[in-house]
Parts: sequence; structure tokens; C-alpha cells
Amino acid sequence: MNNFDFKNPTKIIFGKDTIEKLKEEIPANAKVLMLYGGGSIKKNGIYDQVKTALAKIDTVEFGGIPANPEYAVLMQALKVIKEENINYLLAVGGGSVIDGTKFLSAAAVYDGDTPWEILTKNIRTAKGMPFGTVLTLPATGSEMNSGAVITRAETKEKLAMGGPGLFPEFSILDPKVITSIPERQLVNGITDAFTHVLEQYMTYPVGALLQDRFAESILQTLIEVAPKVLKDPADYNAAANFMWSCTMALNGLIQKGVPTDWAIHAMGHELTALFGIDHARTLAVIAPSHYKFNFEDKKEKLAQYAERVWNISEGSIDDKAYAAIEKTEGFFKELGIDTKLSDYTKDYEGTAEKIAERFTNRGWLGLGEHQSLSPDKVEKIVKMAY
Amino acid sequence: MNNFDFKNPTKIIFGKDTIEKLKEEIPANAKVLMLYGGGSIKKNGIYDQVKTALAKIDTVEFGGIPANPEYAVLMQALKVIKEENINYLLAVGGGSVIDGTKFLSAAAVYDGDTPWEILTKNIRTAKGMPFGTVLTLPATGSEMNSGAVITRAETKEKLAMGGPGLFPEFSILDPKVITSIPERQLVNGITDAFTHVLEQYMTYPVGALLQDRFAESILQTLIEVAPKVLKDPADYNAAANFMWSCTMALNGLIQKGVPTDWAIHAMGHELTALFGIDHARTLAVIAPSHYKFNFEDKKEKLAQYAERVWNISEGSIDDKAYAAIEKTEGFFKELGIDTKLSDYTKDYEGTAEKIAERFTNRGWLGLGEHQSLSPDKVEKIVKMAY
Repeated sequence: MNNFDFKNPTKIIFGKDTIEKLKEEIPANAKVLMLYGGGSIKKNGIYDQVKTALAKIDTVEFGGIPANPEYAVLMQALKVIKEENINYLLAVGGGSVIDGTKFLSAAAVYDGDTPWEILTKNIRTAKGMPFGTVLTLPATGSEMNSGAVITRAETKEKLAMGGPGLFPEFSILDPKVITSIPERQLVNGITDAFTHVLEQYMTYPVGALLQDRFAESILQTLIEVAPKVLKDPADYNAAANFMWSCTMALNGLIQKGVPTDWAIHAMGHELTALFGIDHARTLAVIAPSHYKFNFEDKKEKLAQYAERVWNISEGSIDDKAYAAIEKTEGFFKELGIDTKLSDYTKDYEGTAEKIAERFTNRGWLGLGEHQSLSPDKVEKIVKMAY
Repeated sequence: MNNFDFKNPTKIIFGKDTIEKLKEEIPANAKVLMLYGGGSIKKNGIYDQVKTALAKIDTVEFGGIPANPEYAVLMQALKVIKEENINYLLAVGGGSVIDGTKFLSAAAVYDGDTPWEILTKNIRTAKGMPFGTVLTLPATGSEMNSGAVITRAETKEKLAMGGPGLFPEFSILDPKVITSIPERQLVNGITDAFTHVLEQYMTYPVGALLQDRFAESILQTLIEVAPKVLKDPADYNAAANFMWSCTMALNGLIQKGVPTDWAIHAMGHELTALFGIDHARTLAVIAPSHYKFNFEDKKEKLAQYAERVWNISEGSIDDKAYAAIEKTEGFFKELGIDTKLSDYTKDYEGTAEKIAERFTNRGWLGLGEHQSLSPDKVEKIVKMAY
């Protein structure tokens, strides 16, 4: 097991009808900017629940944060923060709104030339403007971590940021929100969370027995509840397990003491930036090729995953490892997710070269748990995913 | 799944040679009271490592906190805190030293008549004196939670306390400390952590699939590493998994959203108070009888535990559930732990009645996940454990 530090101070308020607890979490003297997305919260009743809870708190609203939170939109919100003397942020939404809010938390206290540097210079925020979240879409885990990914349409870039001062102070997770989520987004959420776990687990064994079992627990739970959630989003227990699994998949716990490999996310982000493909779907496109290409490095863990998560007990290590890749791709397909780039665009020729070039230009010369995935290898993996 | 709140702000610093990181965690202007137990840390080198790390920090020492931290001794430490204007506490020890430090953290800021009220009036501490820990004995999980148990020899009492302001600011977990722990204490630690998980898991199903799997993960890991740790405490990976399992067993995570049943601990504490039996051993004495007595209420979870943790796939629910109790008792025995009260004392007659009477006098009229375990039932369980 590797050495690690672990600290996660976010308060989780989980369960039925918990949105009203908002009023106990935000300081009475706060001036709040409430951030949300395209307005679905106005149709599903969440907006009203939040406004009721905020009745006695001075609140300004900023709606319209898009999926893949866009830098230009966030800069408008930053202007509101400054003009209105906002001192507390409240994200009401999924990962995009929460990630956008984290950027604003950092940008509101940043004193460099331009907030764009937070993304390009990898500025770590020690203490951002305080914020809380009301999660409306389980998927990214952003509600209980300190990272974010921001998109800039102008340059077709999607860049990560974070820092110990960017944990939400609280996050309210009411599984009942799932009843109002379109199936496409539920499927994306399951796929995103599942891949988050894989990226922290599918590397090589380091004797971290407990972390491995926790990762496998989340995968098993997602596999068990996925069909139930899709069949009946009002199945509260399925929804609750789905929601808590998504949070636990990326709140830091399972990655402590083990090597991680975020290469699938890195390649996937480029497919979103280039083609606008849903984030989760890009992961399902890249994952099978990534695991086949890096088979020798990962086959021990792939075989363990085959045995413990997919109950595959027959065959050699190689057989089990290969079967696990097939099972994973099959799981995505059963969710209705296409796993080839050509399923999403006819315009895929040259994509692999373009992504490899971008990685080279950014100096990303060695991704993966061994920092050995050079741009020429990335090119091959993306081509395998056509 | 039940509604829950979860917040655990303790920073964990885990791994080889991490004690020196102490100096980065304690504020430079702190005046520290360093608390420890019987002095074993002076023999195994931990004392020297801590003192080296604290070289530039104003530190007063207080040694001699006994197993089952004693109120009278802690009151002497409280006097030192007041006289020396201490503003930061550092526990260097196992659960007893850390629990004692939590009491002091609360007592140092308590403004009632006497700190004894913290225990008898169930005073919840919102913000105690800040403290950190260096864990020398994995077992209780106290290093990452906000609860403590304090003993008062004068009245033969052992009482619980806690509050959101009693989480350690940081805890340093170096698995190498395990090489210097006597086998008796290693065995106690494994048993204590194992029972902590059972108390949060062995109730009735509420559809908390992920929490169940996490609990099972810890149990499986403890079963896997126990023989390795005992055979060779220098097996770093076994030690690291043992240590992290003990912490995760009682840091709040696995009890969120599920019913819990702390009756085994409640009965066990009395056996320690009456006979001085090691805490962990009292749990091994009570657990089998408790599960047999409450078989009907718990058999569904006992059977799930049998299947997933002990790989028992044959037989009816009842068969599996019963086999799981046998396996649990067998696990304790293989560790070298006796599981009957008469193995520890010849003077056991009347114990059951005495414990039942104490519970009645304290108003503890319904323990267990259904609050249905009345003193007369407690009496029967303890008798079964003779």
C-alpha cells in the first residue's frame, strides 16, 4: 500500500426531503449567489424547494450554466459576484453546475492577472469562497470532492483544476431527484461513476486489499442497481444506492494508497471538446480500447475484477482479464451506450492524431499509472476506438 | 436506506515514516500537552520520533494514562492543562490515550460544575480544544471519530461521550508501529475492529447495498490479514490493511443510512468495569450469545454475512445464519481469544443480574436496533455467555 493523506471535510446531508435543511447550513448573514443550469429545476420542483428553504436569506440567481461548464458563461457569473458583493455560493445542479461553482469559488478570491490562469497554470486554491451544493444529478462525485473540469469553447479546451479549499461546505443529496432525470442522463451518470471507479482500481496490485474491496463494492452496487433505476426511477432504494455510489466513487477514499490511471478521462475529455459527445459516453468509447492496449500491464487487476465483480471463475488470468473487458463493454451497451467513436460521428478520421498532438503540445508525455502512455500510444488507443 | 448526515473532517496521514509530519500539522504558536500511556512508546522508539518532530514546539508531557482511561488520572491532566495554559493536545497512543484526550478536549472548554457531567449528562461538545493523534495501536477507530469511552474506578463505571467538535484535527497512522505491539494487543485490536463492523451491520436489511458491501469488505480484509499480522508483524502490507481497516470500521461511514446495534459493546463494557477483562475479549464473550438470542431478528443479515464473508452457500437461511455465528466464534478462538465469561473468572455467578440491574438503574430499558432489548433479556444473554 502506498502512503497517503486523506481529508474530506464536506458535510453530506443524505435522504428523502432533505432540501429544506439548506436553511440550517448557510450562514444567516450570507449574500448568496444561487447557480443552476438550463432551467430543468424549475420544471421538477427543485427550484421551488430551494427558494422556500432560502426564503430568509439574501439571494441572487444565476442560471444557464451549460453541460461542460463554459468559461465565458462563468466569467459573467464572476461579474455578478463582484458587483453584488456575494460571499456564499450555492450550486443547484449536477456536476457541471457544481464544477462551475468551484471555478467561481476559486476565481472570486484569485488575485492573478486573469482567472484563466487557474486552469492553465494549475493554481491550487487553499481557501475559496465558501459554497454548498444541492445535487440534482448523481454522476460526477463533484458534490464531495475538491476538483472541477472547465471547458472553453473558444479554444475547444477542457481543463482540470482543484485544491484543498474547494470542497463544498455541505452537499444535499435527495435521491428523490432521480425521478425527474431523463434516462439519457441517468445512463450517463451510471457510466461516469462506474468509470471513475475503474480509473482508480484498474492499474496493478499494490496490496491495498481494503481499497480494492471498496472499489469492487461500488462496481457491484452500480451493476445491481442500474437496471432497477432505469426501469423505475421512483424505486427509492435503488436511487439512493445509485446516488451514494456515485459520491463514494470519487470522494477520494478509494484512490488513497493505490496507483491511479486517469488516461480514459484525459482522452475522453478531448472527444467531448472536439465533438460535443456526452462526457460519460466518451469514457465508454475509450475504456475498452484502453484496457485492450494496456492488457499486459493491467491483466492481474482485470482478472481480479473479473472474479470478484463479474463472478468469472474459469480460465487463465488472460482469459479472465479479457472476459472482464468484454463484460464491461457489454454493461455499457446494455445501458444503451454506444462504445465506438464512429457511432457518434462520421467525421472521426484524424481524431487520434489530433488528440496526440494536443497532448504533445500540453507537455502530457506520459499518462497512466506508469506515466508511460506517450502521445503515440494515445494515438493508437483512440484509433482502436473508432 | 435511512436518511443520514455524514461529516468527518479528520485529516489522515497514513504510511511509512510519517510521524515526522507532525511538525507540519501543529500550529507553530501552540503550547502542546503530549499525552501517552504506560511508557511503551519510550521503548519502541515512537517517543523519540515524536519528540524529534516536536523539537521547535513548546511541549509539556503527561504520561501514565491507563487502558480504559481513568477519570481520576485525566483530572490530573486537566489540572496541567489549566496551570500550563495548554492550547493544543497531542495523543500518542491507542484508543485509551486518544479517548482520554477527547475527554480532556471537552473538559478544557466545559463551563459546568464538574467535567463528570460531560459523561453523566451526555454533554455534546460543539468545539473542544484542538488535538491531533499519533496512533500506536490499531483497534478502536478513535483516531478518526468523535466518540470516547471513559472509566471511573471509584464507581466501577464506563461511560460514553462525544460531539461534533471532538474529531482529531489530524491522525498519523504509521503501520510500522505494529512491529512493536505485543500479540495480545494485536489480537484485541483485530477483535475490536471486527466487532465494530458487526455492530453496524448485523441488524436487519434496509436496502443499503453499498454500506453492506463496505462493511463486508472490512470483515473480509480483517479475516485475510489477521493470520499474516500475527505471524509476522513486520509484514508491512498486512499491517497497513489491518490499520486502515480498524480506522474505517469506526469512522462513521459504514453506519450511515443503516440501523445499528451497540448492545454487545454495552454489555461488554460492564464486564470490563466489573472484572477488568480486556475490552475486545468482552466483545468476543458476548457476541455469540447475543446473536443466538436475537437470532430471529438478525437471521437475514447473518445469512448474508455467511454467504458473502464466509462463503457459505449451502443450506437454508437459518442454517447459514447459524453457521455464521459458529464461524465468528471460531475466528475469535483461532486468534486465541476465549469466548466464555467462565474462561476469564471463576466469580461469574450473579453477573447477569448485576448488569441487568445497572442497565435498569441507568434507564437503559431498550438496547439493540429495535430498542427492544430490555434488562431481563440482557440478563439472559449474559447468562448464555457464562
